[in-house]
Amino acid sequence: MNDIQLWFDDLEKSSRYAVSEIPFRLMDQWCFDSSDTNLRHRGGKFYSIEGIRVITNYGETQEWEQPIINQPEIGILGILTKVIDGERKYLMQAKMEPGNINILQLSPTVQATESNYKRAHKGKKTIYLEYFLGQPDSVVIFDQLQTEQGGRFYKKRNRNMLVEVEKDIDIHDDFRWMNLNEIGALFHIDNFVNMDSRSVLCCVVKRQEIDNPLHPTDKILNWITRLMVKYSLTVELVGLKHVKGWITGEDEIRHTSGSFFQVNSVQVEASTREVTRWTQPMIKNTGEGLVGFLVAEINDTLHFLVRGIVEVGNIDVVHMAPTIQCSVYKQRFREKNKCFPYMDIFLSSHENILYDQMQSEEGGRFYHCQNRHMIVKIDDYKNLELRDDYIWVSYNQVLDFVRYGYFNVEGRSLMSCFGLNEQMAVKND
Amino acid sequence: MNDIQLWFDDLEKSSRYAVSEIPFRLMDQWCFDSSDTNLRHRGGKFYSIEGIRVITNYGETQEWEQPIINQPEIGILGILTKVIDGERKYLMQAKMEPGNINILQLSPTVQATESNYKRAHKGKKTIYLEYFLGQPDSVVIFDQLQTEQGGRFYKKRNRNMLVEVEKDIDIHDDFRWMNLNEIGALFHIDNFVNMDSRSVLCCVVKRQEIDNPLHPTDKILNWITRLMVKYSLTVELVGLKHVKGWITGEDEIRHTSGSFFQVNSVQVEASTREVTRWTQPMIKNTGEGLVGFLVAEINDTLHFLVRGIVEVGNIDVVHMAPTIQCSVYKQRFREKNKCFPYMDIFLSSHENILYDQMQSEEGGRFYHCQNRHMIVKIDDYKNLELRDDYIWVSYNQVLDFVRYGYFNVEGRSLMSCFGLNEQMAVKND
Repeated sequence: MNDIQLWFDDLEKSSRYAVSEIPFRLMDQWCFDSSDTNLRHRGGKFYSIEGIRVITNYGETQEWEQPIINQPEIGILGILTKVIDGERKYLMQAKMEPGNINILQLSPTVQATESNYKRAHKGKKTIYLEYFLGQPDSVVIFDQLQTEQGGRFYKKRNRNMLVEVEKDIDIHDDFRWMNLNEIGALFHIDNFVNMDSRSVLCCVVKRQEIDNPLHPTDKILNWITRLMVKYSLTVELVGLKHVKGWITGEDEIRHTSGSFFQVNSVQVEASTREVTRWTQPMIKNTGEGLVGFLVAEINDTLHFLVRGIVEVGNIDVVHMAPTIQCSVYKQRFREKNKCFPYMDIFLSSHENILYDQMQSEEGGRFYHCQNRHMIVKIDDYKNLELRDDYIWVSYNQVLDFVRYGYFNVEGRSLMSCFGLNEQMAVKND
Repeated sequence: MNDIQLWFDDLEKSSRYAVSEIPFRLMDQWCFDSSDTNLRHRGGKFYSIEGIRVITNYGETQEWEQPIINQPEIGILGILTKVIDGERKYLMQAKMEPGNINILQLSPTVQATESNYKRAHKGKKTIYLEYFLGQPDSVVIFDQLQTEQGGRFYKKRNRNMLVEVEKDIDIHDDFRWMNLNEIGALFHIDNFVNMDSRSVLCCVVKRQEIDNPLHPTDKILNWITRLMVKYSLTVELVGLKHVKGWITGEDEIRHTSGSFFQVNSVQVEASTREVTRWTQPMIKNTGEGLVGFLVAEINDTLHFLVRGIVEVGNIDVVHMAPTIQCSVYKQRFREKNKCFPYMDIFLSSHENILYDQMQSEEGGRFYHCQNRHMIVKIDDYKNLELRDDYIWVSYNQVLDFVRYGYFNVEGRSLMSCFGLNEQMAVKND
């Protein structure tokens, strides 16, 4: 632990990082497109900030407009793995991202959008990328399309990959082989393991040997099918500056109420990145978020209370999500009538809190965005009132639904925090 | 068998059915919309025939336009099941559909679009519908969203449901309790078990007790992820009469080459249906289609050669499909340069043909459309050249991917023909 902290400290000292918020007009290569008013890169690559008009029968507000990130590319979030001296290790990276609250976070071996790894930025090549593009002496362990934040991205998915190498490879300064125990321990430090790592590592979480689901999988598919039929979602792309209810000026992009989120822009210097100076727009939250799972022991098997959620950028109408997911939770909790279901159990009960750490959103798009990650165990699941949109799903069932692409990134992130700790606990026994 | 044939004969004699092709202008309630030129019902319900503009990097032709059925509703294909005298039975219906080549086909208990079961036609109510909408004394065994023909429907899905009843229920004349042996036997008669039954029954197919996949499931997910990244698909709805390359007049809607398919319209009389007289547009094929699986025994486990396919109406870019799927196959096979991969194995080899029957497309939208269903077993799978888009998937893996919604309707239809026969064979041992 100290060792890893020292490695981070050394890298921070030996490198030069500077990030500052700047007005939109000072951005280099980025501008509001005169034809559609969207905020985009002059080269047409990377991503753009656009607007959407949403109509749905889900939730309290059923019609609204908002900015959204549009990046119709599939990126790679990939971790290299290798058995070294009989022990499986994962190649993790200490990576600087402009949105990171603490400069460096533990990241996958490769974390690159298509624009990035095809070097639209004309910078250095992405290290180790070749292993994820079919290098012959590597073996793909898994490679799944998984969704990104459905509230902020328009239908975005990335490949989540684990690739095994047998031969020895050169390890650059900002990379390090780590075992799951070491990584698991870092989940107990706030904002240390980045979102992309959590997303990929979720697929490494081991299945339980004994798993007795409360509901057969067909019953859970029945539940999600009912929600897919019940809820509708129509999303139409509109020009960013035409988004109603939002101030979209040259100085700020925010909701008229000041709530939800903002779009800002930053100027970045980073001696360790493929390009060492650049500017870019980002998403900035107006408060801390909360994501959490209620869990319960049912039939001697840990179960998760899963929510079927409609998010504006979803690939399908309904995805599986944590029990609670809320972008500005403290304010919500204060206004009792805006409280989310089960919010009080997370925030004011004396139930058993199994996990409670701050974790960051991905720092390449999200500026200082943190979500409190909570896992709370309840004793008496039978007395919990279950709404239509919620269902108890067993540990292994969660992993199956993750694998087949049903879970959102918030759910996967939490499952990762939990699954890697649990694994650690088992090994420590 | 004779018994069921007699039941069909009796129903045909006692009912009045008449279907005739009519010019579009003689349709009642259907017309070309003056604003967008699409062919639609005046009430705005049911479905419409629209046009699409397609751009993809998949296949030989990468840009084209075509008519398509647009019906943004989720229908119900549901079968009731009950254990009677210790034996599980399924409530099947002898149902008339205007497109059926042989008037009656064996259909699910309920087969209804949302417009239909909400009685947009102002006719009689759909019999047994209540059991699929949450009647308290019934239990949902499965309920999955499954796709329809991606080449003809725009992003269409239906609920495929199996619902168990315990109490005795009244059985109407055109309904009958049947066991899987009886239904399985009917798969050996051409065009007897309709598409919707085949789709639902696919989910009833039993898993093999021993299943040793050639590739772990993660490898198959890797394969489909690669295809999702490799292929792009952009589909834009355009007015039907603006579709390029097609004749879209008042008398006929067909491709200028006469190939692919046509849109026609029919006038229907059917004394047994909710409404006894109506007109509607339909899809009419210009020849017979072919769908087929190559199978092989690998590791003592039956494997299916699955294709990753991009179809214009797909919900996602790539779905899993049979080894071959071709709408006008005889013509294709004659023109050697247009031959589909593996077509010669199906049509001119001396390999082991396990299944070869004509099966109809769904008769509510497809007029006399038949696909030859073939399952061909090859002995030497190692010497078969495998293209990128194809992979061997084990029996149980196919069933898993069906369950989680990865397979197209053609693949499910074939799996149903195979799985129910196999089950029958096992029972006869």
